[in-house]
Amino acid sequence: MSKHIVILSGDGIGPEIMAEGEKVLAKVNERFNLGLSWSHELLGGCAIDAHGVPLPDQTLEAARKADAVLLAAVGGPKWDTIERSIRPERGLLKIRSELNLFANLRPAILYPQLASASSLKPEIVAGLDILIVRELTGGIYFGQPRGVRTLENGERQGYNTDVYSESEIRRIAHVAFQLAMQRNKKVCSVDKANVLEVTELWKEITTEVGKEYPEVQLSHMYVDNAAMQLVRNPKQFDVIVTGNLFGDILSDEAAMLTGSIGMLPSASLDQQKKGMYEPCHGSAPDIAGKGIANPLATILSVAMMLRYTFNEGEAANAIETAVGKVLDQGLRTADIWTEGTKKVGTQEMGEAVVAAL
Amino acid sequence: MSKHIVILSGDGIGPEIMAEGEKVLAKVNERFNLGLSWSHELLGGCAIDAHGVPLPDQTLEAARKADAVLLAAVGGPKWDTIERSIRPERGLLKIRSELNLFANLRPAILYPQLASASSLKPEIVAGLDILIVRELTGGIYFGQPRGVRTLENGERQGYNTDVYSESEIRRIAHVAFQLAMQRNKKVCSVDKANVLEVTELWKEITTEVGKEYPEVQLSHMYVDNAAMQLVRNPKQFDVIVTGNLFGDILSDEAAMLTGSIGMLPSASLDQQKKGMYEPCHGSAPDIAGKGIANPLATILSVAMMLRYTFNEGEAANAIETAVGKVLDQGLRTADIWTEGTKKVGTQEMGEAVVAAL
Ligand SMILES: CC(C)[C@H](C(=O)O)[C@@H](O)C(=O)O
Ligand SMILES: CC(C)[C@H](C(=O)O)[C@@H](O)C(=O)O
Repeated sequence: MSKHIVILSGDGIGPEIMAEGEKVLAKVNERFNLGLSWSHELLGGCAIDAHGVPLPDQTLEAARKADAVLLAAVGGPKWDTIERSIRPERGLLKIRSELNLFANLRPAILYPQLASASSLKPEIVAGLDILIVRELTGGIYFGQPRGVRTLENGERQGYNTDVYSESEIRRIAHVAFQLAMQRNKKVCSVDKANVLEVTELWKEITTEVGKEYPEVQLSHMYVDNAAMQLVRNPKQFDVIVTGNLFGDILSDEAAMLTGSIGMLPSASLDQQKKGMYEPCHGSAPDIAGKGIANPLATILSVAMMLRYTFNEGEAANAIETAVGKVLDQGLRTADIWTEGTKKVGTQEMGEAVVAAL
Repeated sequence: MSKHIVILSGDGIGPEIMAEGEKVLAKVNERFNLGLSWSHELLGGCAIDAHGVPLPDQTLEAARKADAVLLAAVGGPKWDTIERSIRPERGLLKIRSELNLFANLRPAILYPQLASASSLKPEIVAGLDILIVRELTGGIYFGQPRGVRTLENGERQGYNTDVYSESEIRRIAHVAFQLAMQRNKKVCSVDKANVLEVTELWKEITTEVGKEYPEVQLSHMYVDNAAMQLVRNPKQFDVIVTGNLFGDILSDEAAMLTGSIGMLPSASLDQQKKGMYEPCHGSAPDIAGKGIANPLATILSVAMMLRYTFNEGEAANAIETAVGKVLDQGLRTADIWTEGTKKVGTQEMGEAVVAAL
């Protein structure tokens, strides 16, 4: 019984970096005898071009049947002016929601070899290893009612609804506590409970769930303070758990602390640990087609997929070790290049990882 | 016709730092013959203790009649467990709303003397001078409906509404563009227009208003990217304009880039430039009563008040110059102290500024 992966190369630099991800996948599949197979589908702008919608039925069906999805990145200026309901991002939001991928895991890890790439002082970020657990299928991203209406006085008013139910909060809280048990046993739940009722319920339920994990130390922090503390002293955090919008903001801030967002993978999981795996960075249309994009976040997304969905920790470790090796060799794509290291392109980087395997 | 200021010392370190603010106010009032008078009222926890509500009618009436309000900080653990509708923060939100203080100006400035206090590398933050313009009386902070309801299946659900009308967006956009005209003529409007309709309207209206300021360069940025860019390269920004919630998060992040939030004042203005002025930091209950809090943000709030509400630029400059002088003298409160400088208490710092005037 072969395990199947759907690959979505997407737009911009997507196809280039995914090509390297696939080489690595092929290599570990063979070396560790994983029995994985994969096929390609369209998501985002390329799907709009081919089928007029960002998430064609065929893609959704294939993703539903697959055991995991590997995504590069979607979107670009070409599709920025089309009708909002069929923009590339809509395809991304829809696949998250349709596959019920409510748990978004975004690690912010500083590779020692890349310490100098951070805009923060080395002593503040050296050894950084935080995991942001973001709720991904609820909150203001999906809340109803939403839209733009015309008021009686003739002016327009835009509105969105931030909404979370107990069960939505409870299931993401469990994910965070379980992951903390495998790490440093600290969870910080981020809310704005002094202003927003929806996050007051968030705080109450995470506190309740926390009682089931007596070994884990739970703290609560307001989102404005969390945005500050990530800059002041990010190493105080282990696991951060928060809602969809705060998670979007804080995970990008945390990723940038490392100075090398081109290195960071992410996972979006459902209740059965089926997952969609993708780099934290975007489709970078400005450098698309130039062969200079960093494929490592995609390659590390392959590793995350092997670990979380396929339980192949050994193969995942092998990829991560290989990435460490190429960094030790001094190879760097343009985004992480510094004086004294060797600048390489997308393909050269991917092949160096394969060679190191 | 004397101009009157209502002073709200609030809770925690509030009374200590405000005492120094008042000394500075008295000194410039005399030296520049400003003809200002002032009186004290209660807001926050101290008002709850005295009157059972965080914003007593007497305080609100006095603030309405006054030309400006000077606030230290409110809140503390003592009032964290009381009924949410009468918590200290509610008094703050209510006074903002009742006085129609829709324009919140939060500068993030790095004093050259304090460059080493930042957790960012000196070259990234040296010379930093950003102004965040946050909408303060709308958005999800005040949107209806809001609350916690019980669903048919018996579980509870929390909900809040993010809402902005054209006119609310238009007036805050004008404030941002006008301020940019006096600065480096760049405005970055922050939204999440790829997901939220309410911020799609925000983007549309700021673009429209921008056409009235052809000299100002307008850009748009998603909030997740803005949180990243503030860490990566904060000096790319001049004026940032955004809604209430994003402004709360980004202004705290920006403040922390300087490493010295104890130095940062803020202004909350209405349409007639009547304003409430307060330090960006909170009431710091952990160090209250110890005489070690930094009074400089409060002192600089006095300067901001003189500049924006009373049009006394000369007196404002004098205060800012005096603050620069005491920093040059090497005086530091504990929060900004580094090896080789002289640690002083709240009172000593305040008196040094008065002496430097
Ligand atoms: C593209 C956008 C809709 C998306 C989000 O906001 O979730 C992205 O920023 C992310 O974080 O994956
Ligand atoms: C205390 C709180 C309600 C307030 C806010 O969120 O506006 C504070 O964080 C601020 O930024 O002034």
